[in-house]
Amino acid sequence: MAPSIRLSALGVAAALALLPPNARAQNPVGRYRDVADSLIHAATRDSAAYRRLGLLVDTFGHRLSGSRSLEAALDWILVEMKKDGLDHVRGEPAMVPHWVRGDESAVLVQPRRAPLRMLGLGGSVATPAAGITAPVLVVTSFDDLERRGTAARGRIVLFDVPFTEYSKTVAYRVKGPSAAARAGAVACLIRSVAASSIRSPHTGVLRYDSTAARIPAAALSVEDAMMLHRFQDRGQPVRVTLWMNARLLPDSPSRNAVAEVIGRERPDEVVVLGGHIDSWDVGQGAMDDGGGSVAAWEAVRLIKQLGLRPRRTVRAVLWTNEENGGRGAEAYRDAHSAQLDRHVLAMESDNGAFSPQGFRFIGSDSALAIMRQVAALLAPIGADSVEQADESPEADIAPLVDAGVPGAGLAVDDTRYFWYHHSDGDTLDKLDPADLGRCVAAFAVMAYVIADLPDQLPRALAAGSSRAR
Amino acid sequence: MAPSIRLSALGVAAALALLPPNARAQNPVGRYRDVADSLIHAATRDSAAYRRLGLLVDTFGHRLSGSRSLEAALDWILVEMKKDGLDHVRGEPAMVPHWVRGDESAVLVQPRRAPLRMLGLGGSVATPAAGITAPVLVVTSFDDLERRGTAARGRIVLFDVPFTEYSKTVAYRVKGPSAAARAGAVACLIRSVAASSIRSPHTGVLRYDSTAARIPAAALSVEDAMMLHRFQDRGQPVRVTLWMNARLLPDSPSRNAVAEVIGRERPDEVVVLGGHIDSWDVGQGAMDDGGGSVAAWEAVRLIKQLGLRPRRTVRAVLWTNEENGGRGAEAYRDAHSAQLDRHVLAMESDNGAFSPQGFRFIGSDSALAIMRQVAALLAPIGADSVEQADESPEADIAPLVDAGVPGAGLAVDDTRYFWYHHSDGDTLDKLDPADLGRCVAAFAVMAYVIADLPDQLPRALAAGSSRAR
Repeated sequence: MAPSIRLSALGVAAALALLPPNARAQNPVGRYRDVADSLIHAATRDSAAYRRLGLLVDTFGHRLSGSRSLEAALDWILVEMKKDGLDHVRGEPAMVPHWVRGDESAVLVQPRRAPLRMLGLGGSVATPAAGITAPVLVVTSFDDLERRGTAARGRIVLFDVPFTEYSKTVAYRVKGPSAAARAGAVACLIRSVAASSIRSPHTGVLRYDSTAARIPAAALSVEDAMMLHRFQDRGQPVRVTLWMNARLLPDSPSRNAVAEVIGRERPDEVVVLGGHIDSWDVGQGAMDDGGGSVAAWEAVRLIKQLGLRPRRTVRAVLWTNEENGGRGAEAYRDAHSAQLDRHVLAMESDNGAFSPQGFRFIGSDSALAIMRQVAALLAPIGADSVEQADESPEADIAPLVDAGVPGAGLAVDDTRYFWYHHSDGDTLDKLDPADLGRCVAAFAVMAYVIADLPDQLPRALAAGSSRAR
Repeated sequence: MAPSIRLSALGVAAALALLPPNARAQNPVGRYRDVADSLIHAATRDSAAYRRLGLLVDTFGHRLSGSRSLEAALDWILVEMKKDGLDHVRGEPAMVPHWVRGDESAVLVQPRRAPLRMLGLGGSVATPAAGITAPVLVVTSFDDLERRGTAARGRIVLFDVPFTEYSKTVAYRVKGPSAAARAGAVACLIRSVAASSIRSPHTGVLRYDSTAARIPAAALSVEDAMMLHRFQDRGQPVRVTLWMNARLLPDSPSRNAVAEVIGRERPDEVVVLGGHIDSWDVGQGAMDDGGGSVAAWEAVRLIKQLGLRPRRTVRAVLWTNEENGGRGAEAYRDAHSAQLDRHVLAMESDNGAFSPQGFRFIGSDSALAIMRQVAALLAPIGADSVEQADESPEADIAPLVDAGVPGAGLAVDDTRYFWYHHSDGDTLDKLDPADLGRCVAAFAVMAYVIADLPDQLPRALAAGSSRAR
């Protein structure tokens, strides 16, 4: 079908060029109705994006920073991007942390002997070679830990905190280990930060506080954390052996994968869109964030394939090392520091490429109004909502937002996102081909139109002032 | 609170005795309104049943036939039943199959090397010590396997069959291994029979056909089965190494745990209610079927605790070996073969002790009408539905139903049952204390009233004729 598609796409471009100048000026966004429909049609007519994502995650599996699978995936992506005919395809270098999980286990040894389902937290130090066997103190919050006074000394502290909102519950994964260490604990366990569980542990990064001892830390499955809590509630002493031989190796070279459609009038002005290509070392990293990465890549590929060439450059970036460092995002900002004022818009999808609803946007009010006009073109696929965000809606675009670049996150129906997040269940089947196609469409239309509008998306008066704190 | 409860219960019993004989005769079920409300209140006022279930499953874990944990759980149950003051507490012997999983693994070796998440099927033979490494043929149905002709020869056949209804999909677990063997396969994999997955394998029993070679068989996680299928769809050869050292040991002694409230007028007529106390060797066997077992046990305990003594005997039976043999159910039938005509009703809960909706019943039309009258007493907890079944609604009562005993299964909201079924996720937290209390109430009211009605629940004319085929 490729030849006929190309012809019809050229037809669209030709029709746009033939519009009388007045019509365009009076309705700067409305004139994109036909091209938007073409992009939506191209993105949703088949399962090309899903097939590409499947090939990526089945071939390379998960892709932790520092791993061979991440670099092999990046090699393949760069080759494919060139095959797509995209411009300026390159890997932009970034040095990334290289944490290796190694072998690990947690075993209940009192009141009975039973294996526990666990995953070490990313960045955790190892236990001694014999493991750590200690009594467990289960607490339900930071306050609860504090109230217990010296009770945590010499113990393994388990934070058994039910999932409410990710932003709240994740605090125990990130800060729990150091809080436990300050209370005198010898190791830290957390209840997995997960909204559903089939005894599945869910990993993620921890952050050691420089003022506390670095103690080993792991996530237990929700089920195991609840069981240990019940033992404690019954007054039964609980002992666990935690064994981990995780290592932090020297930083390792990686890359952001970058590909463009060069702008026809103002090639140095850029709309950036992407996802992160690294993942945790479990599952396939399909939902987090293979899907977002492929959605952005495919959006740019479709703009190219339809023969469209917007006024400004459209650039797909598959950031490296979002999960445990954010080094790809920093490297992008640093490599492009001289052009940040010509970054018109930065977009990312990192909540799973589920059914898209629109965007969460941070920027000036006038920019928000234009984003909403453009999103209206996505009404046919139900992705026309634009909500205002009070901080960068996604992690990899945060350094750009901090530098004053308007930022947008793809908003999706993420009902099930935290069922599979950072677990072995983050696999291709959790995403739907039609949903992914609509994500591609949403990205493609927003990127193309913002890149093509006569005027640059208005910024706030001063860099950084667009980000409410 | 125990003393005041006992007084109020005695008050109910006294009030019933004081009813004029005419009132009882005119409305044989309606007169049980007060006693039903007392049982409902007692079963739902606290979390006693849930605490008992938690203590059972946390203390002993899963309980496969032949395991020490099953027998230790039975020892404890019999002690607790005596402490409850129940009558005729005993373990009735049954010899059960003793299959031991041992160690096992499945590893993808082509097109890339990656561990697969698997659980051997119950009853599977072992692989040779070096495992079986062979190309994989993915098929989608028995018909598909047949259409492939000789393609399965020397291969590992994977049935990748999506879950629809358990009764349909489970055929691939039970009969798949022999079907694959007849086609020349060297081993069989199935996609887990599960309605949800976080890369969780779900085990269960297989049945070797005597006309086919016995080949090793295991369930892969849904995610892994789908990935292997995608490789095949792309034309990529798939090879897997399956390694299992499962063993079938000589039959092992076990018991059905039995406890009663002896009937005051016709002690040799019996209402039996129960669940199965054995489980698969994963998770905690809390949903399947610790909850049903405890619901029946607690129902009989509450009848006793409230000082109620129905006309006939009410008997809780916690059957052994439902999962991989049904020997407990057969042993019960055989041990009581002389009294089966005095078994008034046999009930079981084995779909998870979720929110109860009523009963599925097999028996005569006149018995069905009475069951519905009694179930109406459960309207306050929404468990008043009685639907007609065309075969025994549960496995452990099937030998009794075959002998002509009216049979009822507790009907529950089992929406999530097959998310956790036969997996490591079958743990206490999947059940809700209030739901379990309502299951106890439904069992207690139905058992008490059917045991107390002046007339025995009418049977069909001939033994066996009540079971439509």
